[in-house]
Amino acid sequence: MWDRFLRACRREPVDRTPVWFMRQAGRYMAEYRKIRERYTLLEICARPEVACEVTLQPIVAHQVDAAILFADILLPLEPMGAPFEFAAGEGPVVHSPVRTPADVERLRIIDPQESLSHVLQAITLIRRELEGKTPLIGFAGAPFTLASYLIEGGKSNNYAKTKAMMYAEPLVWAKLMEKLTEVIRRYLRAQVAAGAQAIQVFDSWVGDLSPTDYVEFIQPHLRPMFEDLQTLGVPVIHFGTGTGALLETQRDTGGTVIGVDWRTPLDVARARLGDGVAVQGNLDPLVLTAPRPFIEKRVREVLDRAGSKPGHIFNLGHGILPHIPPENVRYVRELVHELSAE
Amino acid sequence: MWDRFLRACRREPVDRTPVWFMRQAGRYMAEYRKIRERYTLLEICARPEVACEVTLQPIVAHQVDAAILFADILLPLEPMGAPFEFAAGEGPVVHSPVRTPADVERLRIIDPQESLSHVLQAITLIRRELEGKTPLIGFAGAPFTLASYLIEGGKSNNYAKTKAMMYAEPLVWAKLMEKLTEVIRRYLRAQVAAGAQAIQVFDSWVGDLSPTDYVEFIQPHLRPMFEDLQTLGVPVIHFGTGTGALLETQRDTGGTVIGVDWRTPLDVARARLGDGVAVQGNLDPLVLTAPRPFIEKRVREVLDRAGSKPGHIFNLGHGILPHIPPENVRYVRELVHELSAE
Repeated sequence: MWDRFLRACRREPVDRTPVWFMRQAGRYMAEYRKIRERYTLLEICARPEVACEVTLQPIVAHQVDAAILFADILLPLEPMGAPFEFAAGEGPVVHSPVRTPADVERLRIIDPQESLSHVLQAITLIRRELEGKTPLIGFAGAPFTLASYLIEGGKSNNYAKTKAMMYAEPLVWAKLMEKLTEVIRRYLRAQVAAGAQAIQVFDSWVGDLSPTDYVEFIQPHLRPMFEDLQTLGVPVIHFGTGTGALLETQRDTGGTVIGVDWRTPLDVARARLGDGVAVQGNLDPLVLTAPRPFIEKRVREVLDRAGSKPGHIFNLGHGILPHIPPENVRYVRELVHELSAE
Repeated sequence: MWDRFLRACRREPVDRTPVWFMRQAGRYMAEYRKIRERYTLLEICARPEVACEVTLQPIVAHQVDAAILFADILLPLEPMGAPFEFAAGEGPVVHSPVRTPADVERLRIIDPQESLSHVLQAITLIRRELEGKTPLIGFAGAPFTLASYLIEGGKSNNYAKTKAMMYAEPLVWAKLMEKLTEVIRRYLRAQVAAGAQAIQVFDSWVGDLSPTDYVEFIQPHLRPMFEDLQTLGVPVIHFGTGTGALLETQRDTGGTVIGVDWRTPLDVARARLGDGVAVQGNLDPLVLTAPRPFIEKRVREVLDRAGSKPGHIFNLGHGILPHIPPENVRYVRELVHELSAE
C-alpha cells in the first residue's frame, strides 16, 4: 500500500502502521557521509540533484513509508537577510542576530519561487524519482523555533533573549512573527505546488513556553497560517518536543496530525487530543541504540499505546542521532510493519 | 508568620502565600559576586561560615519565607570518588566519567558525617544565625540527575550515554542507582539531623525520560528513598523540570510537595496531583527580566491558578539566572505577599 502514510494522516484504515523517521537521511548513514565528503550540508540543499539523492537514501536502505525532503529549517533565513553557518560542533550560528526593531524591519518577506527555487526544484525532482511509490513530505520550521535561532544567534538553553523580546517588546515580537509566518506560509504553499504530498511544521523548541505565553505570543500568528495551509488538501503535521502540557493548545492552533515526543505516552496523547486529529510518534531516538530485545519491547509499547483506532504514524519523538546504528532503523521499520499487520 | 513556608508544605492555612526562589543566592546579587571575588563556588561550599553568609544574603535582601542552604547538588560526587570542577562557561566537568561496571564498582558509599561535614556544619550555623525567624531548606540532587552528570561527564542535551547504560546495562545502572540513592538518603537524613527543617530533592533533568523509562529505571530506587525520608517528619519537596507528562508518576514516587515548572499551569497540576500533596512553583524565571506590568500579570496568574486551597508555595519553575535584576526578585516577593493577603 504505497499511500499508507497519507491514509493514516487522514485517519483512514491502513494495512500496516506507516513508518518514517525524522532526520532519516543523515550522518548515521554511510551513504550520506560519503556525499558529505564532497558537499557541506548547505551545498547539498542548494543542489537539487544532490538533495534528491540524499532524500532517497533511506527509502532505498530502509523502505520507509514516506520520504522527507532533505533540507534545513533555517534555509529561509539567508534570503530573508539573516545569513548563518553551521559552525563545527556548535550547530547553527546566525552572524547578525535579530534583536532590535530595526533588525526586524530589515528582514525581507521573500518569494520562495525566487529565493528558494532550488528547494522547489528538488521536490519536483524527488517526486519524479519516487515514481508515485512513496509519498513525499515537505517541511518548514515554525515561527517560534525560527525566531529563537534569529534572536539568540543559535541554539539556546533557555531562550532568554527570545523571551526578553516577547515580554518587553511585544510589538516588535509580533512584527517578527508576522514576517516569519508569512514566509513559512508562502514557502509551504510553494512546496505543495512543487509536489509535496504532506507538510510538517517543526516547532521543535516551542515546548519551552508556558501555555499562557503560547496563547498570547504564538497562537494568534500560527492559527491563521495553519488555516490557510489546511485549505491545500494535504496533511499538515504539527510537531514539537517537550509539549506534554501544550498538546491541546497545539491541536487548537492547527494541523491534521499532531507530533508527540516520547515524554507523553500515545494513549495519553490520543485521549487528550480526541478523535479529530491523527498522531505521529513517539519512540525515544536513543532506544535505537539499545539491544534488540529492548528495542522490540519499546516498539511494541508504542504500537499498543497508539491503539487500533486509525490515525497513527510511527516515528521517533525527535530526529535520528548520528551514532544510531542504521541496521536498527531498518529493524524498527520491519518490526512496526510486522507487528501492526498482525 | 515565621513558618508560613512550613505550614504551606503541610497544606495548612497561611496568612500569605510563602515565597522563596530556587538559586536565590547567586551571581545575580552584588553581595554574592563580592564573595565570589575571593572564593570559588566550591570554596564557598567548603567553608561553613562563608556558605552561611551567602545563604543569608537573599533573606536580608528580599525577606523571602525560606532560606535554602548554599551548596551544589554535585558535592557528594567528589567523596564518592568522582572529582569534578566548574569549567569556565561550560558548567560542571566530571574528570573521569562513570561508564563501565568497574567505574560503578569503584564509587564509594560515603558517610556524610565524615565526607560532607562542612555542609552539615553550615546547616547548624545557618540555623543559629536565622534565630528561628526563617525556616531552612536542605537539599540534594536526585539519583537520575546526578547519574547523568557522572555518566555524561557534564550537562547533556540528550542523555545519550546515560540512556545507553540504562537500556543496555540495566544491572550496572541499577547498581549505580542503588549507590546514589543510598548516598542521597544518608546525606539528607544528616542534613535534617543537623537542622534542616525541610528538604528538596532536585531531579532537575528527569523530565527528559518517558514515563515508562521512569517507572522501570528510576522509581524502584527513588520510592524507598522517599519513604524513608518522609519518616523524618519534615516536608520533602520533589522537584523536576519538563515533567508535564510525569507529574502523577512523580507524586506516586514520593514527596509531600511537588515542584512544577512554568510549562504546566498550576490549576492543571493541582487537578492532576489531587489533594494529597502541596505544590511549589511556577513562574518562568525569565519573567523576572520583563517590565513590571508584565511581571505583575504573570504573578497574578500563578496565584489565581494555584487557587485558594491551602498548599501552595510560590517559587520559580527553575533557578534564578545571573542576569535577573535583584530588585525584581524583591518586587515579586512583595507582590506575592500583597496579593495573597487580600
